[in-house]
Amino acid sequence: MSKLPAVSRRLLLGGALATTGALATGVGPAPAAAAAVTAAPVPRRRPGQKSMVDVPYAVHRTVRVGVIGLGNRGAGMTTGWSVVPGCTVTAVCDIRADRAKRVADGLAAAGKPRPAEYGGSADAYTRMLRRDDVDLVYIATPWEFHYAQGKAALLAGKHVVVELPIATELDELWDLVDTSERTRRHLMLSENCSYGRNELAMLKMAHEGLFGDVTNGHGGYLHDLRELLFSDTYYTDAWRRRWHTRSTASFYAMHGLAPIAAAMDINRGDRMTTLRATATEPKGLADYRERFVPRNHPSWKETYVNGDLVTCLIETAKGRVIRAEHDVSSPRPYSRINSLAGSRGIFEDYAGVLSSGGGRVYVEPDHSGHSWRSFDSYRKEFDHWLWKKIGDDAANNGGHGGMDYVLQWRTVQLMRAGLVPDIDVYDSAAWCAPVPLSVMSLAAKGRPVEIPDFTRGAWVNLRMGLDSRATEMPPVV
Amino acid sequence: MSKLPAVSRRLLLGGALATTGALATGVGPAPAAAAAVTAAPVPRRRPGQKSMVDVPYAVHRTVRVGVIGLGNRGAGMTTGWSVVPGCTVTAVCDIRADRAKRVADGLAAAGKPRPAEYGGSADAYTRMLRRDDVDLVYIATPWEFHYAQGKAALLAGKHVVVELPIATELDELWDLVDTSERTRRHLMLSENCSYGRNELAMLKMAHEGLFGDVTNGHGGYLHDLRELLFSDTYYTDAWRRRWHTRSTASFYAMHGLAPIAAAMDINRGDRMTTLRATATEPKGLADYRERFVPRNHPSWKETYVNGDLVTCLIETAKGRVIRAEHDVSSPRPYSRINSLAGSRGIFEDYAGVLSSGGGRVYVEPDHSGHSWRSFDSYRKEFDHWLWKKIGDDAANNGGHGGMDYVLQWRTVQLMRAGLVPDIDVYDSAAWCAPVPLSVMSLAAKGRPVEIPDFTRGAWVNLRMGLDSRATEMPPVV
Repeated sequence: MSKLPAVSRRLLLGGALATTGALATGVGPAPAAAAAVTAAPVPRRRPGQKSMVDVPYAVHRTVRVGVIGLGNRGAGMTTGWSVVPGCTVTAVCDIRADRAKRVADGLAAAGKPRPAEYGGSADAYTRMLRRDDVDLVYIATPWEFHYAQGKAALLAGKHVVVELPIATELDELWDLVDTSERTRRHLMLSENCSYGRNELAMLKMAHEGLFGDVTNGHGGYLHDLRELLFSDTYYTDAWRRRWHTRSTASFYAMHGLAPIAAAMDINRGDRMTTLRATATEPKGLADYRERFVPRNHPSWKETYVNGDLVTCLIETAKGRVIRAEHDVSSPRPYSRINSLAGSRGIFEDYAGVLSSGGGRVYVEPDHSGHSWRSFDSYRKEFDHWLWKKIGDDAANNGGHGGMDYVLQWRTVQLMRAGLVPDIDVYDSAAWCAPVPLSVMSLAAKGRPVEIPDFTRGAWVNLRMGLDSRATEMPPVV
Repeated sequence: MSKLPAVSRRLLLGGALATTGALATGVGPAPAAAAAVTAAPVPRRRPGQKSMVDVPYAVHRTVRVGVIGLGNRGAGMTTGWSVVPGCTVTAVCDIRADRAKRVADGLAAAGKPRPAEYGGSADAYTRMLRRDDVDLVYIATPWEFHYAQGKAALLAGKHVVVELPIATELDELWDLVDTSERTRRHLMLSENCSYGRNELAMLKMAHEGLFGDVTNGHGGYLHDLRELLFSDTYYTDAWRRRWHTRSTASFYAMHGLAPIAAAMDINRGDRMTTLRATATEPKGLADYRERFVPRNHPSWKETYVNGDLVTCLIETAKGRVIRAEHDVSSPRPYSRINSLAGSRGIFEDYAGVLSSGGGRVYVEPDHSGHSWRSFDSYRKEFDHWLWKKIGDDAANNGGHGGMDYVLQWRTVQLMRAGLVPDIDVYDSAAWCAPVPLSVMSLAAKGRPVEIPDFTRGAWVNLRMGLDSRATEMPPVV
């Protein structure tokens, strides 16, 4: 082979020269110095405090649910809990007492036991937590209340399911992890997308090696919420739109991140190590307001700072890369992206030219010729036992195509059968960590930030998660 | 509205607290310190050296082309140059003299004037450059030779079209910019994808405001080259596979980046400011080799270091974000991604559950209801004049669906009519900068690196580029 010119010899030494700054390109301060923003040291466990990894629920003959937060999400999910076999909603709470009454009326009218009602103040839920006929607390209040309410529920001896996110600050995430460990109660993110039909099929395919060595995956929450954000009725006191006036963060990418994390066995053999974030300028909400919102509307006093598209690039210990996106303020059809790729193949969801299109796949050796195939047959072949078992019921009983009900049914089943949760507090903390970490990275002009290891070392062990063995719902007696 | 708990007040102060490190999250070294790796200072212009922005070609009655590099790419493009009206290939050169003879024979057999032949040594091209019957040099040699050959052609008083990339080091990119300015000759990247039919329609739509405020765009080069990389005949001496043994870089993302940069008027009102890169582990080539390459093949001595998926996130002065991806070593159908989004709409190319799908679009106010529409009608409505004029010829005369021939026809037309190039040395340097910058960012563990302003300030001015006015090819006399 002909002698390489100097340019190639320079690249041969590329890595070394870059770190010494000897390149004429003039790299600045020695990059070998702390490139990543370091997270706080891992808090110490108290004496005797142990991991909740692989800790099963105690057996519950029935699961008695107390609900905090009865807005759009809470009210709908309350109905779902009430129709899961062996599950009863025993208490409901909302800062607005009339909502508690309305939901209680609704359950009674549907022939369900009437739950106790709590409401009328910000701390009404604390009284509900003192009840001894609540096993599981489901929290669907505005984000800013999740941490305090989730912690209080754990301290009251209840298991907890919290809507996204479980908390928005790193110290709060650690505190929920530690409180779960100390109280021996589980806290999980209400991540319905982890139970999505395509997501679970993708997970099973990953575990069966169809993608080979998985190298990258991508997910996100790309949902045009502009109309709902400016609605006067949908989000109480416009709580969600106000988050866009405070900071830029990847608030809600868990819906897309969680299934990718599952497929990569995050906390079950791999872990997320660093995150770096970028954000575009915020244009979408102001542009929408300009076109559609009357000038006397209170939103005209607001200035939006949250970038429309916030993108996090996450690296893992095993050298994978996850891209997590968040955009709720731009016009676009819905997508959680949900794609995974490796040395043997690739899957991409939400692929159709029209929104009815579905996913596409290319996996060797089945496929050759560099052209996509429909995901349909793979989704069927790798259908998760939960969907085979309750898929029809799910679509009837729950929103979002049925994955809400699958989450509720499975959670109740795990508690009644006394099994290990599919989703634990470590998963939940890891999936929510991008909220504060994206803020940190953006404040550091995009520098990578370290992602804490909430498992304190247990992540190295392979263990089952959502790719579970089929089990029965204990009969209701 | 009820009093916000402390968590929200913390977020209200989020930016300030993060920089002072006062958060309990314990941010590490003050992020306000140089977050980005600084590029070398902008080299000084020599006295009298002026910009090549808005400098037209001198009028050429015919364009006489000299070709350096007659492998797969060069040989095919030589045929294309030879059939453009008013263009003659007057000289051909390859390190292997037999290739020059074969190409010359082919042109003669096609009834074209027989070009002079050069070859047989690494410096044969320098003799070709001394000819006074060459106006334009087209370079399609392995990457490592592009810089030296491009510079030599400029110094010999020729205009230059160089295959990707024009150079692989920042100092070389600056040197080509400066040499273009000093010789008053244009050097452009042979970026055929800038002339892609969908890409140009997307550009026109962006300029007509269909996407509103453009906030983000994404492009890349996702092309499964494993079979070609291991072929003993396709890349001479496996030059391209050997690049994967030397370093990790985004080698070839320009094909996807360039059209996004055009739609954002990079160097024409906006500019790229920082780049941060991530790379997965390298798995694809070794996995392919394991399955398909006999054990006595020379490639078994190689160790592959280039991560399969290299992702660059680029920020611009106007607050846009560009994602540029590179993956040539994983099994997947071809894609350049080619998507653009803003406050009024979004376009995504390469959609379709099957590879024949095409692009999809959603733009307000035409569209509502959050569901994708086919791009077809928009592609037709915003069809670029070049495609209207020569689209049929293009598909017959050039590869890659015709965009090769569009680039060649347009370049010859600009030179014969004495017009300003669509693509100049500043575009070319900016689009190739991610090659060395991704190396720098990865060596700095993902820290953002500054992207130089090759225009030395001229980027602020709006000016036409590819979204040009229709003009005629001067008649051949």
